Amino acid sequence: MEGQDEQTTGARAADGSHADIYGEDGAILSSFLAAIGAAIADRDTLTLKREVDDLHQSELGDLLEALHPEQRRALVELLGADFDFSALTEVDEAIRRDIVDSLPNAQIAQGVQDLDSDDAVYILEDLEKEDQDEILSQLPFTERIRLRRSLDYPEETAGRRMQTEFVAVPPFWTIGQTIDYMREDNNLPDRFSQIFVIDPSFKLLGAIDLDQILRTKRSIKVEEVMHETRHAIPATMDQEEAAREFEQYDLLSAAVVDENDRLVGVLTIDDVVDVIQQEAEEDLLRMGGVGDEELSDSILSTSRSRVPWLLVNLLTAFLAASVIGLFDRTIEHIVALAVLMPIVAGMGGNAGSQTMTVTVRALATKDLDIYNAGRIIRREMGVGSINGIIFAILIGLVAAAWFRDPNLGGIIAAAMIINMFVAALAGILIPLLLDRFKIDPAVASAVFVTTVTDVVGFFAFLGLATWWFGVR
Amino acid sequence: MEGQDEQTTGARAADGSHADIYGEDGAILSSFLAAIGAAIADRDTLTLKREVDDLHQSELGDLLEALHPEQRRALVELLGADFDFSALTEVDEAIRRDIVDSLPNAQIAQGVQDLDSDDAVYILEDLEKEDQDEILSQLPFTERIRLRRSLDYPEETAGRRMQTEFVAVPPFWTIGQTIDYMREDNNLPDRFSQIFVIDPSFKLLGAIDLDQILRTKRSIKVEEVMHETRHAIPATMDQEEAAREFEQYDLLSAAVVDENDRLVGVLTIDDVVDVIQQEAEEDLLRMGGVGDEELSDSILSTSRSRVPWLLVNLLTAFLAASVIGLFDRTIEHIVALAVLMPIVAGMGGNAGSQTMTVTVRALATKDLDIYNAGRIIRREMGVGSINGIIFAILIGLVAAAWFRDPNLGGIIAAAMIINMFVAALAGILIPLLLDRFKIDPAVASAVFVTTVTDVVGFFAFLGLATWWFGVR
Repeated sequence: MEGQDEQTTGARAADGSHADIYGEDGAILSSFLAAIGAAIADRDTLTLKREVDDLHQSELGDLLEALHPEQRRALVELLGADFDFSALTEVDEAIRRDIVDSLPNAQIAQGVQDLDSDDAVYILEDLEKEDQDEILSQLPFTERIRLRRSLDYPEETAGRRMQTEFVAVPPFWTIGQTIDYMREDNNLPDRFSQIFVIDPSFKLLGAIDLDQILRTKRSIKVEEVMHETRHAIPATMDQEEAAREFEQYDLLSAAVVDENDRLVGVLTIDDVVDVIQQEAEEDLLRMGGVGDEELSDSILSTSRSRVPWLLVNLLTAFLAASVIGLFDRTIEHIVALAVLMPIVAGMGGNAGSQTMTVTVRALATKDLDIYNAGRIIRREMGVGSINGIIFAILIGLVAAAWFRDPNLGGIIAAAMIINMFVAALAGILIPLLLDRFKIDPAVASAVFVTTVTDVVGFFAFLGLATWWFGVR
Repeated sequence: MEGQDEQTTGARAADGSHADIYGEDGAILSSFLAAIGAAIADRDTLTLKREVDDLHQSELGDLLEALHPEQRRALVELLGADFDFSALTEVDEAIRRDIVDSLPNAQIAQGVQDLDSDDAVYILEDLEKEDQDEILSQLPFTERIRLRRSLDYPEETAGRRMQTEFVAVPPFWTIGQTIDYMREDNNLPDRFSQIFVIDPSFKLLGAIDLDQILRTKRSIKVEEVMHETRHAIPATMDQEEAAREFEQYDLLSAAVVDENDRLVGVLTIDDVVDVIQQEAEEDLLRMGGVGDEELSDSILSTSRSRVPWLLVNLLTAFLAASVIGLFDRTIEHIVALAVLMPIVAGMGGNAGSQTMTVTVRALATKDLDIYNAGRIIRREMGVGSINGIIFAILIGLVAAAWFRDPNLGGIIAAAMIINMFVAALAGILIPLLLDRFKIDPAVASAVFVTTVTDVVGFFAFLGLATWWFGVR
């Protein structure tokens, strides 16, 4: 029966060493949360330490996010030196700032010292310059130099994301020597999947994967089995580009080198996974007209970050309205036009969004390039024409029946074909053009595409009606 | 000067073993493409083999995607047994099908035999049942059993994505024995980052990371240093859930176990990265009203896949139109209403989309749960109110000035406040409700949210105007 129980509770149950703090729905169990809350209220440090001791950094992070702000700060304060700072890399930026701001710089200096350099940098990079300097000044010399080097690289580069702890050996060592060195050295990184081969000036010569070391005889020299430094990543490379290298070549880790080809750090797949998630999220949010907001942001900062997008949309909405205004006398005569016109504009907008979504995504993943752009443009024009005809017939018939006017049906059908075709063209050409001019298509495409489909939709429908019914 | 050159051409230049086939923009160099095209036209097998021999599977995949369909099939045919089937895991589904369909089953059987089981399954799973069976029947017994086992697990599960090649040792072996075994065995997987510990019935006991093996003395027993099987993944677990385990616990690989807790395979981070990309892409495409389409799909299949979404939108467009129809007499009297009404509906739609995008993303990443739902709902209501008031004032002033009618300005301002508030509520409550009812919020939210903002926008604006101006 015990085996059965283990099975049904899934992945985490097989693990003896972790507390099972999540419910069926993936949220933290409310019983666990209540216990932690009670211990915080009682300032029961002993219980708290026991409860969070087993937690993985990401589980502690989830716990912090589930607590109220006062509870969070109290928990970190009560845990004192036992608080695992790596949990701060797993929470929203606003929560991280809130906790870090509540701590004295001395405690932060103590806390980041135990972390891998990439995690330490992740926490320090958000701080004010003065706090950063004060904390760095309290660190041992080598630590300070390492963190400073990472922080000196621009944001969102490989240099900023790299870990400065790595294992490097000279090329003339044997595999046996290398293994013995690793058995003896207590300063190895927590986890690593390859070791690097360097010359005395730290210039990168090559790398060996750990599985390669394990299948090689002890007497063989490192330089005989190392592979030359495939995919060494310049420290100034954009993190998104570095992530694409990892994806394309299925890397687990990669050497990061400075402008003189010297090994300065290692980029690992777990950081890259975070970058991939973040970039995918950015594209999705931008297409939805949202900037870099997080769930923990306040009402005012959220409101402020969304206003610019709405403002741009307002301008285009007035543009569309002024197109309608051109035909006010026609609408006065045939009020059915006012009833039907949002259909023409709206359907064009939806068709345009479909094409635009595919285009923006293909541009982001580099699947769309000069070799297939022509073919994809032709395909979208084809799809726009076919769907335009299908929906023209549908809408034309319904409109004719609704207002008992076959002329109206014909006019809306013609307007639909025009707008769906223009929508397809706008949906692909606008992102392509923005990309060519180095503007992020995810940010700006939607507003341009819907402007085009609104303006063309209203103009085609009302214009055709004005001409056909001969108003004015 | 040589060092300088290497630096400027970036990551791939440091790599002696790979051809540099990409240009500055990340697309395949047209000179390389032309050389391949010429060799294909001349049926110059020797040149072709030399040119593609150095390519990584993903580079060969990119090359296949850049070629014309006839060239693609010719290239695979000309390379014969030298064609690396793993490249097929790197191309669009339509291209993979096209190539595989053009090959005799015997050649496919030969080709997949050289692959890791996960890559072989990836290619075989798309085939017709009969072709699958015929190919499997031509494989050696153990290969066949392994692939069959993966294929028997449902699509998009860990069992389908796992690799069945792994290293497993008994708990009583020493680290020294383990290393010696790996040095001797030629049947090791191509790459691995941990080895597993099992009992005679293959029941999973634990795992050891390779770096742990390398820092442990030869005389130590495996069971003393293994960690218990943290994060063993049931073979039937959804691949997306498995990917979240990897992300949360920064795993490089994880054991996959069957319903009796026996080790059946290993899931690796490179497959998980693909899953993460794919899931992020799915959400983005679905929110844009696009299904599982790929760039290589034909016009007709693209058109067909987009029609259902447009059809749903058409129904809601008619719903919105019928709301306008209720107020046709008011519009006849005050044609300015027809000019201004799309602004109210459109701004509500945009504000609703912003909230919805954030909500859908937070649900997908499990950042939104019962602990913060209440707070987020209140935040969105706050943002909706503030932005509603800001834009009500703006639009009210412009409308009043444009039509020289302060009443009209007041009415549109009131309608804006109502619609922006409703948009915020709809933007968060609709995805939450859909999620509660196990409907993917990414697919269905947009249509419901815009329906609400259209209907409420038109009704509030035209209804207020009808009541204020006392028409009818």
